[in-house]
Amino acid sequence: MKVIIVGGVAGGASCAARLRRLDENAEILMVERGPYVSYANCGLPYHVGGVIEKESSLLVATEQTFRDQFAIDCRTRCEVVGITAEKKTVELKNHATGTVTTEHYDKLVLSPGAAPIRPPLPGIDLPGIFSVRTVPDARQMREWLERVAPPRSGMDSYTGYQTVTKPQRAVVVGGGFIGLEMVENLVYRGLEVTLVEKLDQVMPHLDREMARLVERYLEKHGVRLELNDGVAGFQNVTDGSLEVLTSSGKIHPADIVILAIGVRPETALAKMAGIELGERGGIRVDEHMRTSKPDIFAVGDAVEVRDFVTGQWSLVALAGPANRQGRIAADVIAGRDSRFRGTQGTSICQIFEAAIAQTGTTEKVLKRLGDTDYEKIYLYPNSHAGYYPGAKRLAIKVLFRKSDGRVLGAQVLGEDGVPKRIDSFAMAIQMGCTVYDLEEAELCYAPPFGSAKDPVNFAGMVAANVLRGDMSLSHWDAVNHALLLDVRNANELAVDHVPGALNIPLPKLRERLGELPRDREIQVICASGQRAYYATRLLQQKGFKVRNVAGGMLSRSHTTPG
Amino acid sequence: MKVIIVGGVAGGASCAARLRRLDENAEILMVERGPYVSYANCGLPYHVGGVIEKESSLLVATEQTFRDQFAIDCRTRCEVVGITAEKKTVELKNHATGTVTTEHYDKLVLSPGAAPIRPPLPGIDLPGIFSVRTVPDARQMREWLERVAPPRSGMDSYTGYQTVTKPQRAVVVGGGFIGLEMVENLVYRGLEVTLVEKLDQVMPHLDREMARLVERYLEKHGVRLELNDGVAGFQNVTDGSLEVLTSSGKIHPADIVILAIGVRPETALAKMAGIELGERGGIRVDEHMRTSKPDIFAVGDAVEVRDFVTGQWSLVALAGPANRQGRIAADVIAGRDSRFRGTQGTSICQIFEAAIAQTGTTEKVLKRLGDTDYEKIYLYPNSHAGYYPGAKRLAIKVLFRKSDGRVLGAQVLGEDGVPKRIDSFAMAIQMGCTVYDLEEAELCYAPPFGSAKDPVNFAGMVAANVLRGDMSLSHWDAVNHALLLDVRNANELAVDHVPGALNIPLPKLRERLGELPRDREIQVICASGQRAYYATRLLQQKGFKVRNVAGGMLSRSHTTPG
Repeated sequence: MKVIIVGGVAGGASCAARLRRLDENAEILMVERGPYVSYANCGLPYHVGGVIEKESSLLVATEQTFRDQFAIDCRTRCEVVGITAEKKTVELKNHATGTVTTEHYDKLVLSPGAAPIRPPLPGIDLPGIFSVRTVPDARQMREWLERVAPPRSGMDSYTGYQTVTKPQRAVVVGGGFIGLEMVENLVYRGLEVTLVEKLDQVMPHLDREMARLVERYLEKHGVRLELNDGVAGFQNVTDGSLEVLTSSGKIHPADIVILAIGVRPETALAKMAGIELGERGGIRVDEHMRTSKPDIFAVGDAVEVRDFVTGQWSLVALAGPANRQGRIAADVIAGRDSRFRGTQGTSICQIFEAAIAQTGTTEKVLKRLGDTDYEKIYLYPNSHAGYYPGAKRLAIKVLFRKSDGRVLGAQVLGEDGVPKRIDSFAMAIQMGCTVYDLEEAELCYAPPFGSAKDPVNFAGMVAANVLRGDMSLSHWDAVNHALLLDVRNANELAVDHVPGALNIPLPKLRERLGELPRDREIQVICASGQRAYYATRLLQQKGFKVRNVAGGMLSRSHTTPG
Repeated sequence: MKVIIVGGVAGGASCAARLRRLDENAEILMVERGPYVSYANCGLPYHVGGVIEKESSLLVATEQTFRDQFAIDCRTRCEVVGITAEKKTVELKNHATGTVTTEHYDKLVLSPGAAPIRPPLPGIDLPGIFSVRTVPDARQMREWLERVAPPRSGMDSYTGYQTVTKPQRAVVVGGGFIGLEMVENLVYRGLEVTLVEKLDQVMPHLDREMARLVERYLEKHGVRLELNDGVAGFQNVTDGSLEVLTSSGKIHPADIVILAIGVRPETALAKMAGIELGERGGIRVDEHMRTSKPDIFAVGDAVEVRDFVTGQWSLVALAGPANRQGRIAADVIAGRDSRFRGTQGTSICQIFEAAIAQTGTTEKVLKRLGDTDYEKIYLYPNSHAGYYPGAKRLAIKVLFRKSDGRVLGAQVLGEDGVPKRIDSFAMAIQMGCTVYDLEEAELCYAPPFGSAKDPVNFAGMVAANVLRGDMSLSHWDAVNHALLLDVRNANELAVDHVPGALNIPLPKLRERLGELPRDREIQVICASGQRAYYATRLLQQKGFKVRNVAGGMLSRSHTTPG
């Protein structure tokens, strides 16, 4: 059996290695258009930033490794330029020699990945504008930052003298994962960074109010945000630097521009082979990673996958699923019945000292699907016991089904303990957990690492309170017609408060019930929602119509629309 | 309804607060023998170490909080000295006044905790010997370390001059959680620490070979370990310091001694009330936290709980379960049907820069139960992508059912990323995951936080390989009669190797198959087991009898008996 694998990074390389382990006798040919196989593309932004110093660190396995350890015929700078599915042949172009040869396959695996989007804007090909996909891309960026970028003359703000400086100003276009990782790394290198994003939020996979927290964090670290503004073009300036022009007419000077607008599945080969594409523009595969053509499989960023929670087709450019898909294709080729379960999109992104992570679905997606059988909670617990040094506040949003309590999605931001929590939520969602299961979860606790009631338990408890009818919930976008009751203490109100809210500190509530109306809904707030919960329970039992405003004052500024 | 809650820390305080939320009209009396309620007993070792500087940080909620926020009659220095279950009365002794009063209850909740074991050894009451349970305990230790300990005269090793010094030498007796936390904190304070442990390992809840790794780590940090040696007594020395005498006849000089031998459920009250105890010496309760006496509940460290994995009764002194039990007792008292699901003993302990964590059951327990339907794997993956700075090696042991793949337990040690992994395993065990589910788990990945194949996925893959018959496993205690084949490269063998092992580097294996016997089992090793897996697959397909030695050379020194 001869298997040809097209693409030698995450999905392709995993498939090749797995297939060899399953079938010592298969003839395996892995071809890669670029100069490297199995490189750490997730590490590229950090290499540009200098966090990963050596380029060689990014080269996880070489052609030689594949030949020596796996007896795989591995060819770099070798591109598939034609597929004839009926004859089961591919045409391979050797970029070193320019020759094209035809090879027969019994099984073909496409792992071409997804390409950075480069819209045909004026000036897009000017020197100094980069995308982040390959090792050579990163190398060129480093060279540009270190040597090539034209010195820019200007006034030193301290001395007033005319100076010649290295690149200082970067514009990153696009606020997704790669955009934010590039922002972080360029700041780390000492550049002033402007982030231009066409949408009204960074991290489009997050709900907008959680993205707000990320945006504030970026601004706190000196990043200039330009949301709601697309890039219209680029131009050179006389001093040799660039200008980024936006749809709104703004001009952002730049010594380097990073394009991180997003990626598009590479489907040219699939189209050539007559393979069916999906509604989102990716290659359509079944749960065995089979395409519409017999004996052709596809894996990785180029394929559409089912969202595990919503059942919708989606495009997910993540390394974990790509690796698993490669293994599954190899299994199926070797005669096994492995199936891809779909993806829940678990992701995490470092932003300076913080991390923003997400798993499962978002409110945005549920709304788009017209799904109303959900509720959301916000909580802001400490990352570990508050009395142990270094505890940081986490911001957590959890979505769950109103009808059965199933956990649908979670978003977590914070400077400590984020991976621990998002992975608990991820495992919970994979296993179909309800919020009642989260309540009972027995997660690790010692003062440096957690709390006796872990934030994940705490999320389960808050959500279960809602579902059990122990606490009605409100959100900041619905506090208009209710009486707002603030149960914090006077010293807290001095810091910030909601105009018009009635203040009765929790310890005084029992004796001051007479001040509250019985004919009108009362919505209770405190700092994070905990004391408001105590007050809600008290008032509910005393016959008042009452709701707790989810997340209290900590939710106010980012969850209030507008 | 009048509810009396005995004990005002984790379980009791949780129960009281929850009950108030559920029933605004209940009369709740919470009594605590000591001077504080709701204090952070888990923080005590860190307060002794000075990591948590202020004693006030440990006082999470005060009597006043309970009175003001929850309208709970909260009394400290108030001890229950008698229970008459038939009359539903308790006798309360006010330690401030010495008066004893009788109070009626409708429901009684016992949360007395567990007391540090203090065996009646000669000299056990000498000044300078401490247990770690309460805030006053910690205060006394700090005072002893800072002021009270007798100055010890000796020769300054650098100057040769006679000097007078502060306490320098500590002996910690007992290598469980509190023992190790005290060790860490005393080292942190600059003391020379000797740890004396009667058993042949520290952390008795771990499997011995995993405890070995903890022991090495302690030694690396300068801790002197004295295993297999119990304490026989204590005596004063003329310079005012102490000596710890052991069963083997050793004498360990000490300026302070910490007793952390373990805890024993406080059952005096339960016995007084005629309440049934369990086989492990704790209070027996049903899943609703009801004792054998009508209207008396018990929660926390004093009760026996069902092990979630094995179904066995056990004593688990952990804050998380205590809190949940308190809530459940409150629920049941308020007329709800809440049930305690049992405990899986998830725990974590910081040891200097590392953490050791465990969840589910251990091989030790399975052996004790005569359970042979399990297999174990060892793996040593990086905590995050190896090419990103700061990756640390994790040591992971996973136990799973041979018959159905169910995950039974996990132990994880490392300097980075331990909480993330143990909580994934914990959630997996709670939800009845199999190793096949671990393979497919979609956990968060970005280079600073994980790998595209997370260690948890990796564990699932290794285990699934075993169960699917893709790889037979061996362990270091069973390599005697097989041919040992080392597939590492020559430069690695120069560092350490197994005498008598045949070396064929993996890249040469295909061409040197003729050197291997077909009539004898071959056991393959490499550094961690990964290349050995590749070799195992190759040899198995070529018709050899072959096994992979779990964890390779990294498993060798701690998993080899003796």
